Amino acid sequence: MSTERIFNFSAGPSVLPLPVLEQAAAEMTNYRGSGMSVMEMSHRSKVYLNIFEETKSDLKRILGVPDTHEILFMQGGATLQFSTVPLNLIGITGKADYAVTGNFSSLAAKEAKKYGEVNIACNSEDRNHTYIPQQSQLNISPDASYFHYCSNNTIYGTEWTYVPQTGGVPLVCDMSSDIMSVPVDVSKFGLIYAGVQKNMAPAGAAVIIMDKALAGKEHPLTPKLLSYELMIKDDSMHNTPPCYTIYMLGLVLKWLDAQGGIAGMEKIKAAKAKILYDVIDGSSMFIGCADKDARSDMNVTFKTGNEELDNKFIKDATFAGFENLKGHRNVGGMRASIYNAMPTEGCIALAEFMRNFERHN
Amino acid sequence: MSTERIFNFSAGPSVLPLPVLEQAAAEMTNYRGSGMSVMEMSHRSKVYLNIFEETKSDLKRILGVPDTHEILFMQGGATLQFSTVPLNLIGITGKADYAVTGNFSSLAAKEAKKYGEVNIACNSEDRNHTYIPQQSQLNISPDASYFHYCSNNTIYGTEWTYVPQTGGVPLVCDMSSDIMSVPVDVSKFGLIYAGVQKNMAPAGAAVIIMDKALAGKEHPLTPKLLSYELMIKDDSMHNTPPCYTIYMLGLVLKWLDAQGGIAGMEKIKAAKAKILYDVIDGSSMFIGCADKDARSDMNVTFKTGNEELDNKFIKDATFAGFENLKGHRNVGGMRASIYNAMPTEGCIALAEFMRNFERHN
Repeated sequence: MSTERIFNFSAGPSVLPLPVLEQAAAEMTNYRGSGMSVMEMSHRSKVYLNIFEETKSDLKRILGVPDTHEILFMQGGATLQFSTVPLNLIGITGKADYAVTGNFSSLAAKEAKKYGEVNIACNSEDRNHTYIPQQSQLNISPDASYFHYCSNNTIYGTEWTYVPQTGGVPLVCDMSSDIMSVPVDVSKFGLIYAGVQKNMAPAGAAVIIMDKALAGKEHPLTPKLLSYELMIKDDSMHNTPPCYTIYMLGLVLKWLDAQGGIAGMEKIKAAKAKILYDVIDGSSMFIGCADKDARSDMNVTFKTGNEELDNKFIKDATFAGFENLKGHRNVGGMRASIYNAMPTEGCIALAEFMRNFERHN
Repeated sequence: MSTERIFNFSAGPSVLPLPVLEQAAAEMTNYRGSGMSVMEMSHRSKVYLNIFEETKSDLKRILGVPDTHEILFMQGGATLQFSTVPLNLIGITGKADYAVTGNFSSLAAKEAKKYGEVNIACNSEDRNHTYIPQQSQLNISPDASYFHYCSNNTIYGTEWTYVPQTGGVPLVCDMSSDIMSVPVDVSKFGLIYAGVQKNMAPAGAAVIIMDKALAGKEHPLTPKLLSYELMIKDDSMHNTPPCYTIYMLGLVLKWLDAQGGIAGMEKIKAAKAKILYDVIDGSSMFIGCADKDARSDMNVTFKTGNEELDNKFIKDATFAGFENLKGHRNVGGMRASIYNAMPTEGCIALAEFMRNFERHN
């Protein structure tokens, strides 16, 4: 068995910082003298509540969450939020706007139709989601309960570079794949949600940051555990939360602090993405899948234009220790997901591998 | 910082087998030569799918799940199942029977009323849930969609010793706090569910075992991730499952096998419970909270009858390394939760402590 870690470019669940994993391993059977694992702690015990509160307050500080907003930990990932958001919010006016710029935003819009009237504010499907529509292209309904978009499209490798202006309609954003990689003015958003398994923690939770004023208008058939109002009232502890995932998130936040917080991470991630995009732009073999002005710094999508060669690239790369580079079937080609925890060395090594591959093929 | 583990009698999340925690720690940064943590694996990767399939097939074998039934992994614990069960099943006839024998079954019944007509088949509240009603006391509706009960009442320390006969109405059972401690004839059940954080794994998932014939009749407003039909179709992988929790469950199942499976566990758990109940029955200080014929082997509830003395017991016990012995506020007194992973030594040591406490107080 190899003792070496490979470079893991998985789109999610994805790489975590090695020091975080090492700390989790060291604390596994006895958390800081408590005599038990974090996994074994009652969620209402003092020792666990300390972990929970510290994670929440670190998140509040790092993301700059104003006091008008509450941080919630829920289960079911972002996909359950596709239902939870309209169950709680679409009843405000009975309708909502959805910007469709990829797979997940499309699924979110489809699910919302169960609960109210959905207006598709834009749809980039005409060019297989290779671009992000401009503000002027957004068809905004002044009477929508909210405007929903997904800030980074994992599959297509595109990312919104602006926050939509909606004229007072609350913004709801799925930030699963780029949260904590760029500074965000949380006060502009009615609700932010993110599955944690890409940029924050292992799978098993979603973080929700919401304007408390939006809670309390849910559909009467809302499962109680999906009620934002109840989750706010019980501080995400109506029942047992995903305790260990929240602990891991806490460790990741400490690591993030050591990287200079989100401001530090923004510089690092831009530099990492540039390393790969520079190879693509300087290559006569590799083609970027997304429009240049819409490129994601989290998911770098590219191809050779020759499926056989793509497959050879993926195979050779895997052999060389670069895993999970196969692109999603909707796009084909390759995808390198380079979330916060991907070390710069991983991007440098992949860039080198790409240049070598081009030279020899 | 102490390097010693204490005896943790928490009602959930609760103690896990030490060898399981040690293995998880050893595999944390590099799972069996894969070069990554289980936490970092794509849920669709071969290496993770092997873990997933093996866990599922071990569960199928250990619990004796027939081919008519499907095993699902969902999020939100048992509490989200309180909503999910009626959303999916109550529409069959529009009504359901609920046996209320404790806190969680009462909450389940209350939630089900959102979605259909609920008949309370029995209610042990008249004696603060200290007993389990007999078969003859169950008020069963022949036209109910299902009959719901909770096999073990964590808070009150009572456990059903028989499987209700319902004359063909599908049985739905919340087995969160005694699953895998006694053999169960799964074919008798329409649906079994259990939050994993008591007897199976760290918090973050529920295991559902259901007769596939019951799926496909859900309410049109069911959030898609709560649709049993969809979960069966996509083998619990419609979106990212709680991967690491499932891995931990897999490790616990291997450990359970080494204890002789459920048959072995049944003997061990009965012997463990007897150690504590013998102290209670031989004592002139401690009183068991539940009727003798309804006593749970998982949660041993007892008190002194003197609140001040109860508090002294809990304080002294904590000091001596026995944690989380405080009873739930609905019952008062003490509660020792002795799930599968509580070592026999923990029960022996607690029994000794109880006898000493009585001698000196």
